[in-house]
Amino acid sequence: MIIDVHGHYTTAPKALETWRNRQIAGLADPAARPQASELVITDDEIRETIEANQLKQMRARGADLTIFSPRASFMAHHIGDFQVSSTWAAICNELCHRVTRLYPEHFIQAAMLPQSPGVPPETCLPELRRCVEEYGAVAINLNPDPSGGHWTSPPLTDRHWYPLYERMVDYDIPAMIHVSTSCNPAFHTTGAHYINADTTAFMQLIQGDLFRDFPTLRFVIPHGGGAAPYHWGRYRGLAQELKKPLLAEHLLRNVFFDTCVYHQPGIDLLTRVVPIDNILFASEMIGAVRGIDPETGHAYDDTKRYIEAAAQLSPAQKGQIYEGNARRVYPRLAAALERRRP
Amino acid sequence: MIIDVHGHYTTAPKALETWRNRQIAGLADPAARPQASELVITDDEIRETIEANQLKQMRARGADLTIFSPRASFMAHHIGDFQVSSTWAAICNELCHRVTRLYPEHFIQAAMLPQSPGVPPETCLPELRRCVEEYGAVAINLNPDPSGGHWTSPPLTDRHWYPLYERMVDYDIPAMIHVSTSCNPAFHTTGAHYINADTTAFMQLIQGDLFRDFPTLRFVIPHGGGAAPYHWGRYRGLAQELKKPLLAEHLLRNVFFDTCVYHQPGIDLLTRVVPIDNILFASEMIGAVRGIDPETGHAYDDTKRYIEAAAQLSPAQKGQIYEGNARRVYPRLAAALERRRP
Repeated sequence: MIIDVHGHYTTAPKALETWRNRQIAGLADPAARPQASELVITDDEIRETIEANQLKQMRARGADLTIFSPRASFMAHHIGDFQVSSTWAAICNELCHRVTRLYPEHFIQAAMLPQSPGVPPETCLPELRRCVEEYGAVAINLNPDPSGGHWTSPPLTDRHWYPLYERMVDYDIPAMIHVSTSCNPAFHTTGAHYINADTTAFMQLIQGDLFRDFPTLRFVIPHGGGAAPYHWGRYRGLAQELKKPLLAEHLLRNVFFDTCVYHQPGIDLLTRVVPIDNILFASEMIGAVRGIDPETGHAYDDTKRYIEAAAQLSPAQKGQIYEGNARRVYPRLAAALERRRP
Repeated sequence: MIIDVHGHYTTAPKALETWRNRQIAGLADPAARPQASELVITDDEIRETIEANQLKQMRARGADLTIFSPRASFMAHHIGDFQVSSTWAAICNELCHRVTRLYPEHFIQAAMLPQSPGVPPETCLPELRRCVEEYGAVAINLNPDPSGGHWTSPPLTDRHWYPLYERMVDYDIPAMIHVSTSCNPAFHTTGAHYINADTTAFMQLIQGDLFRDFPTLRFVIPHGGGAAPYHWGRYRGLAQELKKPLLAEHLLRNVFFDTCVYHQPGIDLLTRVVPIDNILFASEMIGAVRGIDPETGHAYDDTKRYIEAAAQLSPAQKGQIYEGNARRVYPRLAAALERRRP
């Protein structure tokens, strides 16, 4: 079985964006603010957008199941206040839930949180509860920078975030650390802000001792861990200067990297440097990089090809990356799969 | 000949830091502000700090010449106003100049600029002129974020920076894109801010068309290019989506990466992915990562070992990385070396 731990509903029907634009217009003009009930999307519209896109590519490439969450760049937690984010997160999560209900074999949910800059993370708990208990979500996406590129929140190791971590531990769900759109002109969203956030989060975790307080808390750092695996020697050395334990002990029982790295040498480095137990198959399809690589003739984000071509990986190791590790890191996913067995 | 394009005077005599601390104290209390002339450092003190550190390691590792600039994390352009930065840059550059005068065979200067957040970059031109014309500087360090982790400056492709680029082209000197200390608690200075800045700068250059306006302008992106080589497929794909030419044409006549990547797999990826013409030997010794790697028994930042062990590199390619490319990218360095020939 091949599990892709990182997919977003980037192809949602246009009505979703139209509703969001009206919500944003309503920031200045409350009379223009739409009701959630004004968004109407039919099951057929959902089927069209999924079957012609994600599901088509999954079938073509050979992925069975995607952990599916609302479009990351559309979370835009910096827009409006908590109430705006709360309404928007509820809508987006409900829409993803409908995808998972229409295609239970192929999609299982990860929840978007209604974060808002300067607002305590515990305000996200009701939406988190709904997604886990009612929608069967197996993970959350946690934005370490709800300001959208101004980085005004405390590091992930700060007690600021602990109420969320406590609930994650209770539910035994991991968080993917995933920012949203950058509203800072210095940072291109998918080319700088996403990758920087991955790198930043990893270094925050090195600096702190978060997993002493939460030994079972688990984070997935997407986009191949940002710059971390490429600079693994730097990070091992910095941890050493900070008098931390070896990374294997300090972080690697709790921190995992996905395979959203869009060329063979990158995947080769990732799988050479990071223990196989810490690597989770993912493509972020359909996402930031949708083209065909002229050097290979295949889609940049067809990451399964790179795993297949990684000569140093044994079949058993590929199985861990494709499935075994995901079952371990996302126990609610494993439980859902068990329940499905005939 | 082995040229290290990236070294800072991280070991300057304690008197420098003491003076700086008095200058910072003087921000609140102008009566406490020291005169530049109050900083007294003897040639013997300089010799001690260089011979026991950088020069000792260069000899041990086999590097001949270092392009040497003031300590990057001490630039701290966010502290005080332009006048504060101007005095501080002048002091730091003069001190580096004294190192290059004492050891002309082993050190040649790159200039720190007196940048200050919100202040037009053309204010840096007098210090730049002094460093090039009086101190023989062959390059500058350009901080894309003088705010120290708040990223309040326009992207490097913005006309904001053009007066500096015009002078760089006139002098035919490259800039290393190098941030300083982070004062944003989200970003560890050397573990997140440095690497993020490299990644951010590279993506800014992809988004723009800067080298159409300045075909001979050259930037060196340090720390192995941040995350860029590891995510080379992502960057090729993003350039493609932005309808830019292939990276070889769009950027690689003007953008170069150093080898400050502190483990073998990272250097192997860099030299496999980035054209050899675009790779410059560097160690940033003595810098962020000063320890011994327990996996190898050697210093993390002894990057020459990784180049030597990169099986795919021919002796000619190693020669390019060690010397040939640096002579091409830093023509004033090449000219200085020519002048030294008997």
